[in-house]
Amino acid sequence: MRPVVIAGVGMIPFERTEEGGLVEMLATAGLNALVDAGVDDRPVDAVYLGNMASGLFNHQEAVASALVDSLALMPAAAERVENGPASGGSAIKNGFLAVASGFSDIVLVVGGEKMREVIGPKATDIVATMTHPMAEYVYGVTLPAQAGMFARLYMTKYGITRHHLAQVAIKNQNNGLLNPYAHIQMKITEEGILTHPQAHINNPVVADPLYLYDCCPVSDGAAAVLLTTPEIAKALKKPQVIIAGVGQATDTHALQEREDPTDLKAVTLAAKKAFEMAGAQPKDIDVAELHDAFTILEIAESEHAGFFKKGEGAQALDAGVTQIGGKLPINPSGGLKARGHPVGATGVAQIVELVWQLRGTAGKRQVKEAQTGFSLNFGGFGNNVLAFVVRREA
Amino acid sequence: MRPVVIAGVGMIPFERTEEGGLVEMLATAGLNALVDAGVDDRPVDAVYLGNMASGLFNHQEAVASALVDSLALMPAAAERVENGPASGGSAIKNGFLAVASGFSDIVLVVGGEKMREVIGPKATDIVATMTHPMAEYVYGVTLPAQAGMFARLYMTKYGITRHHLAQVAIKNQNNGLLNPYAHIQMKITEEGILTHPQAHINNPVVADPLYLYDCCPVSDGAAAVLLTTPEIAKALKKPQVIIAGVGQATDTHALQEREDPTDLKAVTLAAKKAFEMAGAQPKDIDVAELHDAFTILEIAESEHAGFFKKGEGAQALDAGVTQIGGKLPINPSGGLKARGHPVGATGVAQIVELVWQLRGTAGKRQVKEAQTGFSLNFGGFGNNVLAFVVRREA
Repeated sequence: MRPVVIAGVGMIPFERTEEGGLVEMLATAGLNALVDAGVDDRPVDAVYLGNMASGLFNHQEAVASALVDSLALMPAAAERVENGPASGGSAIKNGFLAVASGFSDIVLVVGGEKMREVIGPKATDIVATMTHPMAEYVYGVTLPAQAGMFARLYMTKYGITRHHLAQVAIKNQNNGLLNPYAHIQMKITEEGILTHPQAHINNPVVADPLYLYDCCPVSDGAAAVLLTTPEIAKALKKPQVIIAGVGQATDTHALQEREDPTDLKAVTLAAKKAFEMAGAQPKDIDVAELHDAFTILEIAESEHAGFFKKGEGAQALDAGVTQIGGKLPINPSGGLKARGHPVGATGVAQIVELVWQLRGTAGKRQVKEAQTGFSLNFGGFGNNVLAFVVRREA
Repeated sequence: MRPVVIAGVGMIPFERTEEGGLVEMLATAGLNALVDAGVDDRPVDAVYLGNMASGLFNHQEAVASALVDSLALMPAAAERVENGPASGGSAIKNGFLAVASGFSDIVLVVGGEKMREVIGPKATDIVATMTHPMAEYVYGVTLPAQAGMFARLYMTKYGITRHHLAQVAIKNQNNGLLNPYAHIQMKITEEGILTHPQAHINNPVVADPLYLYDCCPVSDGAAAVLLTTPEIAKALKKPQVIIAGVGQATDTHALQEREDPTDLKAVTLAAKKAFEMAGAQPKDIDVAELHDAFTILEIAESEHAGFFKKGEGAQALDAGVTQIGGKLPINPSGGLKARGHPVGATGVAQIVELVWQLRGTAGKRQVKEAQTGFSLNFGGFGNNVLAFVVRREA
């Protein structure tokens, strides 16, 4: 396989987008990555779009064809890759394969979702269409409900408390305040969301033991990366941030069918594969972006990916290890919790953040001397997971 | 790039499926390909699903995760690839890249669509969501309407008559009678659909000059191929049918923005790329599966892909060149017209037919001594096209 360099990155601020449609959002993020890479008039060979549910959110399909037209990149190949909340990661993997195989030299990967075109609980229903149709969806299971049940089991098993969950939310919203692309720009405290007698008014229950501030917001947003060969990246005078490892694994579609529902096997396997391909270990990672759609997931993923032993993630969090400035900063971007989670954008936005960190251009949230980054994009309720190791080469 | 062999193929009959949901259909086709390849307990590394609109047709997303579970292929990677009516072709392309790159050794590609879960005109609306949202969809344009306008221009420019269109329908429905997987099993005659005074009752107008028998049916269906390396295919004792050429090209998303709407540039370019990669020319092709969603398209594609000069496709058809037994049999399977067009299945079903032909196992519709095949999967109204050259190696 040829090495693959991330030569350009771009985003638009995640928020509730009032103006423009899905394609405009995607095109703007894509254009930002093209400009960042300085591609100029070099032909782009392929466009990969990570998007979960443009049909249901926006009543539009074949959006990749619309995007390639909006960016005037015809006759570039174009297709959408869908893998629920891991659609962005899957799009990057396939863009990576296009370059790694030698089939394409310059590939643009855009991830995005415009979720707020639908009103009220409909977004939660659309997200729930990723659950098992007969074992889960028909019973009214939503993703917050699954996360609540998972959190209850996980917290009981490992002695995790709502204090720990609050620490994830507080850390990530603090990080989000340092990220102009983050949807949620708001400082919170343990008193305000947990210990004050009126905290339950600020922070109502969603699916016990998960409360409002344990859940990521519903956002519109898009992010993009430009993938190419080391030679072309050199000609573009871009830092050699390479995709060193790619791992993907699936697990039972329905959460209830897992022997131990607290064991996120696909996370463990995907991370292991990505580390093996990169010739790296968890201890080599300087900065990580994990898929904290719910606070409990950041803790559970940090353990399953191999950064901490099972049951020790919450202590590491409490000890400040995962803060910017700690030994392993997790979600310096603010994560899904603060940056937001426009479903198809997330896996791409994670890589964008890592590239900024490895280039040393992450501003106030810069992790010092970051050279190797890790991201984890969690599809379904852990039934389809992608992991990446990215590395700045000399 | 490593060579990629199609070591297994499978389908389910295309029809209106009364029993079972989308995932059951996909899993059955996938299982047929796994059994055909004789994979036994070898691990499948990845599953690619070609599907256009499971969200809108079936209110289900992340179907690739459901499929990998139904086939008990976890922890194989899994994702859906969507490219409108070329979703199947795009899924094959990405499965091809996974093997060609060396990232995966055994990849299952399944294409399918369950369209008849929705009632009446809703299917036409869902298919129309692939058109340009502001330039086309808002004005009520449907795919048959676009095809009608295209047909009018193309027929006027090249002197094509309804007699020629009827010849496509008659040939492909005759071929469908030889294909047990074809949805439409019905002999038609030029008298019955065109020249009899009552023909307009059998064959009412859809979008003039296209009538009912010029349009493919709305079908449920699924098809699958198993891709692997020549070494593994040899171990499986399967014929070495390789994907020798892959081409893809895009054109303006909206039909009206093309300088010459009768010029299907993406067809020309995609075919050219596939031929170049395969080191082949149109004259080397023994059998072709083209995307005859509307009869006019078979004629236009046969010219744009390079088999006939512009304006000579209809004469070749009239002369019997494209019949089974002719110099270049087109759509021996019955094509979209008779086999049916469950959107995401089509690009995969075309390759399944070619493999059967190249293996010499196509039964009553066998093209003699077929060694090299060509398929064309037409997305949008020609805005995103895939072409493949497949070849039986010694």
